[in-house]
Amino acid sequence: MPNQARSELTLAAIVDTALDMAAAEGLESLTIGEVAKRLGLSKSGVFSRVGSREALQTAVLQEYDRRFVQDVFTPAMREPRGLGRLNTLMARWLDRARRVEVHQGCIYCAGAFEYDDRDGPVREQLLDGVRRWRSVLKRTVVQAIDEGHLDAQTDAEQLVFEMDALFTGAMRDARFLGDARALDRAWTTWQQLIADRATARRAQPRRA
Amino acid sequence: MPNQARSELTLAAIVDTALDMAAAEGLESLTIGEVAKRLGLSKSGVFSRVGSREALQTAVLQEYDRRFVQDVFTPAMREPRGLGRLNTLMARWLDRARRVEVHQGCIYCAGAFEYDDRDGPVREQLLDGVRRWRSVLKRTVVQAIDEGHLDAQTDAEQLVFEMDALFTGAMRDARFLGDARALDRAWTTWQQLIADRATARRAQPRRA
Repeated sequence: MPNQARSELTLAAIVDTALDMAAAEGLESLTIGEVAKRLGLSKSGVFSRVGSREALQTAVLQEYDRRFVQDVFTPAMREPRGLGRLNTLMARWLDRARRVEVHQGCIYCAGAFEYDDRDGPVREQLLDGVRRWRSVLKRTVVQAIDEGHLDAQTDAEQLVFEMDALFTGAMRDARFLGDARALDRAWTTWQQLIADRATARRAQPRRA
Repeated sequence: MPNQARSELTLAAIVDTALDMAAAEGLESLTIGEVAKRLGLSKSGVFSRVGSREALQTAVLQEYDRRFVQDVFTPAMREPRGLGRLNTLMARWLDRARRVEVHQGCIYCAGAFEYDDRDGPVREQLLDGVRRWRSVLKRTVVQAIDEGHLDAQTDAEQLVFEMDALFTGAMRDARFLGDARALDRAWTTWQQLIADRATARRAQPRRA
């Protein structure tokens, strides 16, 4: 195998191992020394490939985002705009969690609580990721309103808050309480919230 | 001041400082050395009063629980059984967060993600606290069903999941995203979910 190909494989293995560690123990606990130990590489070998601990944290988040886009975002964007696409986003988000995050941990869920009192580039990158995802969700909700699939009075930011709260609550219950039904519970509530907004079925109660 | 009274005041100050630290940086980051430094005491002085780092973590959680019971649980239990008591629990839980946890951090929210892959007595104590709170919520929901304030078909565990997911999502948004409206959003969704269950207004949608 040419040196460059082998070097790229090594870098991929480093990021993969670091992602596992960060998901289980938090991005803050990530160290080049521990990644090297787990892979049986020298610390200087890992260092020369990633540059710094901070660059490794960045690479881990980029790799997480790449996988998330591939599993959740891209397939949902193939659906026509509207409620179908919105439901696909939520369903795939929960499906991915069932396959991956329930076992591995969710870097963004844990990161929000790990970095809420910390400044720095990792916090900024996490914030940026959350904001990008929220803006995808909001745009998809607005499209579902525009298509007439959700009531015109729907508060898009409120619904986005609810999607992320249900996801975060379900991750906490599934991992910390070991409640395997939690992701189904999130889906059940989601369906309820959508049903409440799906049509002008009833006069919307005005907010006081 | 007699020695014993002074010693008790010192212990209270130690636990108070440790609670602030644990809320901001996580229970795992709590060290006797750092608490001593912040209070201008010797490390051995703090050690002699708390016994061990683990005992200090336990004391922090007990103090947190004591304050939570005083602010949220006890006043709600003065309400008659039913929807009024349930609403008071949720309202006071969010009100306390507005006054305390939004600024200080929530030990239980962060702890769930900090300890989901860690064993040990702190995890067990956190789990025990979450389970006690969830059982209070569940009992209160069941009473509201028994009183005829919520539909007889209401899934109590589902509603408890929703309460905790809304709270956790709101805490994350308020602290990590800096969204001051998040706790109001949780209350808005809560009212919607209760309205959906307040009467047998319509047939429940079946799961696909």
